Amino acid sequence: MNKMGIVSVRLCTGILARWTGLCPRSIRACSGMTISQIDEELAKLLQLKAQLGGDDGKHSFVLKTAKGTRDYNPKQMAIREKVFNTIISCFKRHGAETIDTPVFELKETLTGKYGEDSKLIYDLKDQGGELLSLRYDLTVPFARYLAMNKITNIKRYHIAKVYRRDNPAMTRGRYREFYQCDFDIAGQYDPMIPDAECLKIVYEILSELELGDFRIKVNDRRILDGMFAVCGVPDDKFRTICSTVDKLDKVSWEDVKNEMVNEKGLAPEVADHIGEYVSLQGGMDLAEKLLQDPKLSQSKQACAGLMDMKQLFSYLQLFRVTDKVVFDLSLARGLDYYTGVIYEAVLTQSAPTPAPPQQQNGAAGEEGVSVGSVAGGGRYDGLVGMFDPKGKKVPCVGVSIGIERVFSILEQKAEASAERVRTTETQVMVASAQKNLLEERLKLTAELWDAGIKVEVMYKKNPKLLNQLQYCEDTGIPLVAIIGEQELKDGVVKLRTVASREEVDVSRAELVELIKNRTLQ
Amino acid sequence: MNKMGIVSVRLCTGILARWTGLCPRSIRACSGMTISQIDEELAKLLQLKAQLGGDDGKHSFVLKTAKGTRDYNPKQMAIREKVFNTIISCFKRHGAETIDTPVFELKETLTGKYGEDSKLIYDLKDQGGELLSLRYDLTVPFARYLAMNKITNIKRYHIAKVYRRDNPAMTRGRYREFYQCDFDIAGQYDPMIPDAECLKIVYEILSELELGDFRIKVNDRRILDGMFAVCGVPDDKFRTICSTVDKLDKVSWEDVKNEMVNEKGLAPEVADHIGEYVSLQGGMDLAEKLLQDPKLSQSKQACAGLMDMKQLFSYLQLFRVTDKVVFDLSLARGLDYYTGVIYEAVLTQSAPTPAPPQQQNGAAGEEGVSVGSVAGGGRYDGLVGMFDPKGKKVPCVGVSIGIERVFSILEQKAEASAERVRTTETQVMVASAQKNLLEERLKLTAELWDAGIKVEVMYKKNPKLLNQLQYCEDTGIPLVAIIGEQELKDGVVKLRTVASREEVDVSRAELVELIKNRTLQ
Repeated sequence: MNKMGIVSVRLCTGILARWTGLCPRSIRACSGMTISQIDEELAKLLQLKAQLGGDDGKHSFVLKTAKGTRDYNPKQMAIREKVFNTIISCFKRHGAETIDTPVFELKETLTGKYGEDSKLIYDLKDQGGELLSLRYDLTVPFARYLAMNKITNIKRYHIAKVYRRDNPAMTRGRYREFYQCDFDIAGQYDPMIPDAECLKIVYEILSELELGDFRIKVNDRRILDGMFAVCGVPDDKFRTICSTVDKLDKVSWEDVKNEMVNEKGLAPEVADHIGEYVSLQGGMDLAEKLLQDPKLSQSKQACAGLMDMKQLFSYLQLFRVTDKVVFDLSLARGLDYYTGVIYEAVLTQSAPTPAPPQQQNGAAGEEGVSVGSVAGGGRYDGLVGMFDPKGKKVPCVGVSIGIERVFSILEQKAEASAERVRTTETQVMVASAQKNLLEERLKLTAELWDAGIKVEVMYKKNPKLLNQLQYCEDTGIPLVAIIGEQELKDGVVKLRTVASREEVDVSRAELVELIKNRTLQ
Repeated sequence: MNKMGIVSVRLCTGILARWTGLCPRSIRACSGMTISQIDEELAKLLQLKAQLGGDDGKHSFVLKTAKGTRDYNPKQMAIREKVFNTIISCFKRHGAETIDTPVFELKETLTGKYGEDSKLIYDLKDQGGELLSLRYDLTVPFARYLAMNKITNIKRYHIAKVYRRDNPAMTRGRYREFYQCDFDIAGQYDPMIPDAECLKIVYEILSELELGDFRIKVNDRRILDGMFAVCGVPDDKFRTICSTVDKLDKVSWEDVKNEMVNEKGLAPEVADHIGEYVSLQGGMDLAEKLLQDPKLSQSKQACAGLMDMKQLFSYLQLFRVTDKVVFDLSLARGLDYYTGVIYEAVLTQSAPTPAPPQQQNGAAGEEGVSVGSVAGGGRYDGLVGMFDPKGKKVPCVGVSIGIERVFSILEQKAEASAERVRTTETQVMVASAQKNLLEERLKLTAELWDAGIKVEVMYKKNPKLLNQLQYCEDTGIPLVAIIGEQELKDGVVKLRTVASREEVDVSRAELVELIKNRTLQ
């Protein structure tokens, strides 16, 4: 600590000098300061800032949710429930278990996993104790879970919210808090079989959600790395150039080339060479062709990736999904942890909201304007090993459905459609036309609840019958059980069908059965 | 900005002087600095600290979840799903819609709502932009939602995680991240009808979860306040004395009295007077008796609360739940926002984990040892108004099921029981006894997936039949569809029932129907 203290002072004198306008020499008086002393001074400065009233000091109360987040109202929840049911059914059809992990992780668990995106991680305030961050995805917590519990084989899904301090574009379904629906297969298996199942799952889910036409782009990190190598990209620039290529679905090739040359220091001819490769799209045929490519075939890595790509397409044929899958060399995906196959699904129909500007050479090509990625994933064979004390690897492949975009589309559909979205499942309203029957209404309501019927009753002593019926119309309750003095005397209930206005007297003993039958139809 | 800049400098000179050891006068050279300049310097100092390696610089990697949090493994998730289904069914039976809100709120949204518990709120780090905190419960976000959307009537449930920097006791189901299952009724209605429904819901859920016997304690903030007033507690100490009374379910009356007298400055005879009241328990009869109490009846507030308590019990009789409900004057509940009826449910059977020390005068009484609260809630008529710009009130009453404790109990039950918890719903495994049939297995698997059957297949080229059958035994898959050269030639599949080992040849055309029938049974 002593040594560090001295270093700290040497460095801090420069800052103090610039701050105070004094010469560094005169500030050397502060020599001997330690980190804890710097901390103390930092705390004082922050307190000072708070007293002065910086950005934080405003006291006008704002009634809103945090930037980039939203509430879900009951209608949106009804849509969300339907989407989740479709997705979960698919995951269960493929034999997946489910797990859950905490919303925050130790900060160090997330460190060094996301490349250039790490700056988007939300940190919790240091309130004493551990340093924590909100999860950025579900993949890294999954890998941590596997390593921690020494699990080497699992097929699991996980549906939960993740957090990114990204620039929100909420009309297009881009939030800072958003759901991910992840399906992953961990374990040492014969090549490309689990990988093909992940693509089958994307295909099934996007088909069942009826979002319009889509395409699933596939590539392989080894093919990308091999391509970079044969094009002459220095080894230490593979990841950063990968991040740049990843932008091709949003910006033009000119912009991407510009970034490669001017920001990342590639020679223009190297960038052009990359440009030729990343314009290629195809299927198994393209993989075969590239295996003959005089340059690319010199890379062992690329060849391994291309052989696997051929194998993948043969399984995709058996799974009958090749009509939507494209081998696309421009697909890169930004995350650091991928090691093999990568994929991304895009909807190919125009959305009601404006599409991003100019798409050249981008993924969507001639067939339509890309409305953004709705699913993505890939193979990450090294991630679990990063958490294992002995570095023991567990090969993994998975896919994440980005369903906020899906919600947006389905919400807009629901808005446009005449069909009413019911937000409750109530089967009967217990009502009365006469006064002073609250007790009798509550008694009947409790009887029906206890029999498992979904019932509502108005929380008023003497509600008007018209109001009770109107409420049923408004909320879609199909039946009304009406009681009055006469019905009570006769031991019956008048059961009214809201849609037809038909009414029948039913004995109390038969009421439950009849309601069950009527609401089954 | 100019003015603030000058103030900032005047204040900062003192700090710099102490830091550098120079006299304040010589530092006045820095005059003219603004907040943004302070920010800049702060950033530099923080960077400097990071370079030096403070607390953050340790590189011993710890493989764990954050303190007070846990992962859910597939078995725990299966139990959790069952519990949620029970609870959600009940909420839907009572006609509730559902909403969702973000996991974090603007910090100021949570400020001033939780009394002494506010120190337990998790704040997010200031990374620029808004100051955010993790939600502490679902009630305050609900009130914010109502005010923001000008909703005056809703019956909604919300199931989500909340966060408290409390002392975790994980074996007893006390976590820092935990689920709440909230049901609330907002709107102006005739008194005590929605309140009674909330208690009916607690009764139904705790009965259906089969957790053993339970009791629901009921009280009213107005009765407590009236009691404090007639006992001679000063007005400004009502809330803090309320917090002390709230501890009666965990510590003895002696400890509570001690805190009242020695920490909170009550006269001993005032405390003793409170002590007499808070030992009272009963039903409607107790409410009637207290309405005649010469002292308590002098408080208008107390009388209003006692009249409503009588009314509540009359509705609870109609709902047939009075066997578990106790009017208990020691029930206080710590949160600031309650204004009327409050309640709390406790399990009354001993749990396998040790109970808290010494229970005198506590809630559980003679009938058993309290294993902690599993549900609680009450009426909060002022909370929504705190968010409305014009202070417009929306009366609310609600209940929160604290299900972590429920999970703990059901997990322990499942551990103890011989019954296996299935973690997948797979109906069939597609298998083969011969080599080189991977393609045929994948083809059949895809056919069954496409027909909606839940299928698994081994990700190996040539798995052994024994391994495939063993996997079905281990995971509870009931059927195996076996193919070999002969079956392929004959256009059939050998369908094996795992439990009975019975095998039948089925034509491929009839396979889907047969699997559906077999797995219905």
